[in-house]
Amino acid sequence: MSKASVPKGTRDFLPAQIEKREYLFQTIKSVYKKFGFVPIETPAMERLDTLTGKYGDEGDQLIFKILNSGDFMSKADKELPSNKLAPQISKRALRYDLTVPFARFVANHRNDITFPFKRYQIQPVWRADRPQKGRYQEFFQCDADVVGSDSLLHEVEFIQIFDEVLSQLGLKDFSVKVNNRKILAGLAEVIGHPDQLMEMTIALDKLDKIGLEKVNDEWRQRGLSEEAVSKLNRIFSIDGNKTAMMNTLTDMFETSELGRKGIEELNYVFSKVEELGLNKAKLELDLTLARGLNYYTGAIFEVATNEVQMGSICGGGRYDDLTGIFGLPDMSGVGISFGADRIYDVLNELELWPADLQSAPSILLVNFGEEELNYATGVAKQLREAGVSCEVYPSSAKMKKQMAYADKKGFPFVALIGSAEMEEGILTVKELANAEQRKLSVAELIEFLTH
Amino acid sequence: MSKASVPKGTRDFLPAQIEKREYLFQTIKSVYKKFGFVPIETPAMERLDTLTGKYGDEGDQLIFKILNSGDFMSKADKELPSNKLAPQISKRALRYDLTVPFARFVANHRNDITFPFKRYQIQPVWRADRPQKGRYQEFFQCDADVVGSDSLLHEVEFIQIFDEVLSQLGLKDFSVKVNNRKILAGLAEVIGHPDQLMEMTIALDKLDKIGLEKVNDEWRQRGLSEEAVSKLNRIFSIDGNKTAMMNTLTDMFETSELGRKGIEELNYVFSKVEELGLNKAKLELDLTLARGLNYYTGAIFEVATNEVQMGSICGGGRYDDLTGIFGLPDMSGVGISFGADRIYDVLNELELWPADLQSAPSILLVNFGEEELNYATGVAKQLREAGVSCEVYPSSAKMKKQMAYADKKGFPFVALIGSAEMEEGILTVKELANAEQRKLSVAELIEFLTH
Repeated sequence: MSKASVPKGTRDFLPAQIEKREYLFQTIKSVYKKFGFVPIETPAMERLDTLTGKYGDEGDQLIFKILNSGDFMSKADKELPSNKLAPQISKRALRYDLTVPFARFVANHRNDITFPFKRYQIQPVWRADRPQKGRYQEFFQCDADVVGSDSLLHEVEFIQIFDEVLSQLGLKDFSVKVNNRKILAGLAEVIGHPDQLMEMTIALDKLDKIGLEKVNDEWRQRGLSEEAVSKLNRIFSIDGNKTAMMNTLTDMFETSELGRKGIEELNYVFSKVEELGLNKAKLELDLTLARGLNYYTGAIFEVATNEVQMGSICGGGRYDDLTGIFGLPDMSGVGISFGADRIYDVLNELELWPADLQSAPSILLVNFGEEELNYATGVAKQLREAGVSCEVYPSSAKMKKQMAYADKKGFPFVALIGSAEMEEGILTVKELANAEQRKLSVAELIEFLTH
Repeated sequence: MSKASVPKGTRDFLPAQIEKREYLFQTIKSVYKKFGFVPIETPAMERLDTLTGKYGDEGDQLIFKILNSGDFMSKADKELPSNKLAPQISKRALRYDLTVPFARFVANHRNDITFPFKRYQIQPVWRADRPQKGRYQEFFQCDADVVGSDSLLHEVEFIQIFDEVLSQLGLKDFSVKVNNRKILAGLAEVIGHPDQLMEMTIALDKLDKIGLEKVNDEWRQRGLSEEAVSKLNRIFSIDGNKTAMMNTLTDMFETSELGRKGIEELNYVFSKVEELGLNKAKLELDLTLARGLNYYTGAIFEVATNEVQMGSICGGGRYDDLTGIFGLPDMSGVGISFGADRIYDVLNELELWPADLQSAPSILLVNFGEEELNYATGVAKQLREAGVSCEVYPSSAKMKKQMAYADKKGFPFVALIGSAEMEEGILTVKELANAEQRKLSVAELIEFLTH
């Protein structure tokens, strides 16, 4: 007997979960579409060499590799250690994110698409990560990217998109945190450590958790001078006041062209977003934001809800040369991603699912026997032709059993069709929530259920 | 530089293809829902032992196996041949169809679901098949199954579903072919070869292609007696006349209880379907239909279009003990599958896609410079709030370039906003199909685009 479980870190989705997830995806999609993004999809499998080397050493370890078909060992050197043997017996792998496949797609289809190319993509990705609460080996990403345009209008629109999607989903208090890689690089310049951008930001990333004093200690340990630490304190002791921070940065960046460029970009994005207005999002400048630093070259985004304890629920940023590695250089891009699984958990916790997300059909036609069944199947046909989803109980089981089925599956109504009803040409319709009964013709039932 | 291609046998999907496929899936889903089916999804990866041994030796060869993470060779016997080594270095595999994962799901979630359980599932599957025209290594299946009910009402409804989906998609001439495994078994009984059901049907399967004479030869070669061959000719020389075939079968099955049961089931299904009526489908009895013979125990379905040369586009049947192998015995099930890729090709060939399947947003706001852009982004915000999808061209590129973008991306309209328009508070809206221009306020434009 085979064991009936899914592999570790993966999940089945039951009907009610699918309906919720679909609602989430539909909300994201509809906003992406309103902003001019069009859908693409890429295969679950990519060539292994398309993926390796793009996610760092640690990422490479987490790529699921697919064993070659047939006699895969025949040309392999079986004496090799696993990590060297793997590329000999596997030439495909499961996609690890949507960004690298997107870059490959753009290079591949450069003649079929129009630049700037604005695409969205909602597909699962796979990572051989250690499973833990809220972290899965198969999960959906919901990405949108623009490639082939360096206009800051896209940054503005992505912030509008975060705002619109999350406001539509019912979140009331969330922050869109923005930073710019050029500002971080400018800071490293003006403290006299242009080569220690990474060291500076690794410590900075912990500011929220450990506080400025301990970050100072870490900076010193990592070799930053007292003067550098003191300069950094000038800016990081300002707490959350965007204008004050921007003014201080502007002062500090007298000698850093890169820094001034970062300020200019941020100013444009902030003023444009504020001018257009946001629904529920709070716009924040967060200089500690450094996600994907190796990768991003301009704006950096992160979104966090203030209603629930739940890390970042969206992210993104600008990268200058995404498709170069696939032979299409000098394409600036900017993109975002909604963390579907985390947002799902947030909506669960805040009970923000709409009441009418229901997977059960509208009405169950109870089956009292052969003759009644004949009548019921005719009624079902008429209901379906009118767009009403319904079900005929497939056997003339005991009434109690049929009602239990209706109840468990979540039917709001059942229709009773016995000889009396057949004679009169009507149905007795019972509303399960309150046991109210109505006698209706098929036409009246359609009217009742669809209006 | 990495090569920018997808693995052999897999495909990227461009926006126009996604929109078409979505339309196809939505049509299938909406009909499944009307008949009371609810959605589930299972992970792309299953435990390898969940899948092996379920698809025959040939199928097992075509399962994509996933290499274990980490030092996968450390506990493996590297001297083993590939086929013996594989299960030592791979404990997961990509799903090969939706039926086995569904059976595993039902056994796994038996306490969370209500029987009879009616589920649909639309997900990709992967097979290491040799790629050829119309055959891919990654393709979508669109399945619906009922498990936990032996009522023939489900067979009736599945035929209605075939009819409704394909009629809705615009097919005008297609056949739903029905057979019953019990009739084939009954035939094997009455010709005196109950143990040679397989031999009989393998030859029978070729009737269409090679004709009755050559099938007779093959029967003889496979060891059927002259008497058996002559009995079979009695029935297979009747050409397509359902009533005549049923009558002859009824005569022949005097001595076969199984055969009579098959006739009874078919009669019920045919008469019920005919009583309820079909849209465009032709209902046929096809005694040569033997697909998945090892597997099906009752009804067998196949659908073919008569408008295009394209094998079967849907299939299905009843199986008695699908979940037994996962520890849940005696669950009768019946299910169908729409062959999405083939149906997609049929709709392409017959040009049956609706005209309004379009992935481009409604209107492009042309960008004439900084001040005009400020105005345009405000207009875009109003349009999107009214549900209109639109895009602002991200830079003030030459008019010609912006119009070429609109044209290539398929925008039906562009809005020109220059200083004259800004002064008057209007937009000049150009319809690309006929170059017609209208001067409209934002409110008028919304009215124009949404009504």
